[in-house]
Amino acid sequence: MTSPLSEDDLIARYFAPIAGPGALGLKDDAACIAAPDGCDLILTKDVVVAGVHFFANDPPASIARKALRVNISDLAAKGADALGFLLALAMPSHIDAAWLADFARALGEDAALYEIPLLGGDTVKTPGPLMISITALGSAPKGDMARRTGARDGDRLYVSGTIGDAAIGLKLRMGEGPEGLSQGARMHLLQRYLEPQPRYVLRHVWRDFANGAMDVSDGLVGDVTKMLKASGVSSRVRLAEAPLSVAAREAIALDPTLFDIAMTGGDDYELLASVARERAAEFEAAARRAGVALTHIGDVVSSVDALEFFGRDGARRIFARGSYSHF
Amino acid sequence: MTSPLSEDDLIARYFAPIAGPGALGLKDDAACIAAPDGCDLILTKDVVVAGVHFFANDPPASIARKALRVNISDLAAKGADALGFLLALAMPSHIDAAWLADFARALGEDAALYEIPLLGGDTVKTPGPLMISITALGSAPKGDMARRTGARDGDRLYVSGTIGDAAIGLKLRMGEGPEGLSQGARMHLLQRYLEPQPRYVLRHVWRDFANGAMDVSDGLVGDVTKMLKASGVSSRVRLAEAPLSVAAREAIALDPTLFDIAMTGGDDYELLASVARERAAEFEAAARRAGVALTHIGDVVSSVDALEFFGRDGARRIFARGSYSHF
Repeated sequence: MTSPLSEDDLIARYFAPIAGPGALGLKDDAACIAAPDGCDLILTKDVVVAGVHFFANDPPASIARKALRVNISDLAAKGADALGFLLALAMPSHIDAAWLADFARALGEDAALYEIPLLGGDTVKTPGPLMISITALGSAPKGDMARRTGARDGDRLYVSGTIGDAAIGLKLRMGEGPEGLSQGARMHLLQRYLEPQPRYVLRHVWRDFANGAMDVSDGLVGDVTKMLKASGVSSRVRLAEAPLSVAAREAIALDPTLFDIAMTGGDDYELLASVARERAAEFEAAARRAGVALTHIGDVVSSVDALEFFGRDGARRIFARGSYSHF
Repeated sequence: MTSPLSEDDLIARYFAPIAGPGALGLKDDAACIAAPDGCDLILTKDVVVAGVHFFANDPPASIARKALRVNISDLAAKGADALGFLLALAMPSHIDAAWLADFARALGEDAALYEIPLLGGDTVKTPGPLMISITALGSAPKGDMARRTGARDGDRLYVSGTIGDAAIGLKLRMGEGPEGLSQGARMHLLQRYLEPQPRYVLRHVWRDFANGAMDVSDGLVGDVTKMLKASGVSSRVRLAEAPLSVAAREAIALDPTLFDIAMTGGDDYELLASVARERAAEFEAAARRAGVALTHIGDVVSSVDALEFFGRDGARRIFARGSYSHF
């Protein structure tokens, strides 16, 4: 920064213009919004760190979108309507006015797009990497939150959108992708890693139909395992049916080892649900009306020890590592 | 750590045992608590960073208390009752099991003490310094939040407890304190820096009586200036009346330059309020019943440009820097 801004100046210049009414102009100690009567509050918090969850030289607008959207994905999976978010931004010294302007503009655009107003936060300087911690607040009618623990015997297991794009995109970003990939496929996969597209449009579908629900952020295999374990059930999951984009198919055709990366690699920000078989047609129709494709990847059984994954050739697969861990 | 824990194991071992019922065992994507009917939600978020807001080698229990209590102080200043908090913890590699056990135990004790359950959060590893971002959620009857902007002509200006202990304590912690200070004074001042004592017992007094309100976290002079500016009023503030502990008096007697440090240095976590003159006696009595001393340090006038501070000798003081900036 040519002339260093005070924290108050920085907040006034970049963040107050994008804040919601409950933020009180970001000039008070706290935000104040009306509690939604007769509702549950749904709260989630996800931290992203440069060099761990994104690259320090990613575009600031993309960093802003990722930081907010990973939280919106959690709200969507729980069937929650967004009420607002709080932002903590820990900035290393290289963050300058141009960076902040881009970051705040993108955050404001997403706040408008997803109707999730900025309510408050804190900015600090750090000698370490850029870090963004967002707390998102949502609501759902009392008792209606879609839970991880709700999957039941006989449910069908569904996943939204496509799986594995971001994990392959991360490989490309690290210069480890396959040779000969078309430019279009490359752009698609890189973009899916750079900026999640949370399935917020599905939140009411998930709230109305999902018995068990979570978002797929740490890899399909690992997250299916987590949800079914939490629910005390199992499934025979057909990974051959896991939805792949055209770009992911192209990459996997060039390098078949990418299939496992796609199934376990994380950063999908798709939604996973188990839905009672008799409601499956209605559920699929509701998702179709919301404009998102769903894929039926298995069926839930009551046994707790019968979770099995089947690969592309139909043979049983054991994954040493079911999910990507940033940790 | 001798054997590295997965993030799930770490959460299950250290944080699930101290979590509240709304946290769903920290096993879901989000927390779920009933929205308090007829209330406003009060939300605040403060980040603390090792090397900026505390020392990396501070006791883990003290780091936990500071991280949570700076947020509780904001809730108290706004007159809010705590509903819960979310924790983001970014851990460098030197954080081991013993550190985490102490940190989580202290956090759990404070959660019980202040009746502010842990609802959720996120843990990440970082190549940078330890960082803790806490979002605290509280409630107040609709419209009752004490605001920064509410100070009015004729109000009396009050501050709770004592001012400057933590700022002098920080000097001592950095080896810059005065020679000849008694061991008792030294311990008191160091402790006041290490672990804030938020004035949560005053929250209902503040809610019921304060026209303008905030917590004193960045230095008395700067925070009085902020509150009065936000309210569009002024005051003639008698710093000679600012409440000093016996220990602070002893330190200032040894080194008179510490008086300015005390008035501008930050980390007090006391509460500031402006209260209508005709309600002042009742307000003072309510605070007395809560067990906290208040000091009347000035009176509010309607002019916006008449803010003046008077020093120990009664002469007008201009502070180059009214508040400590971590920024």
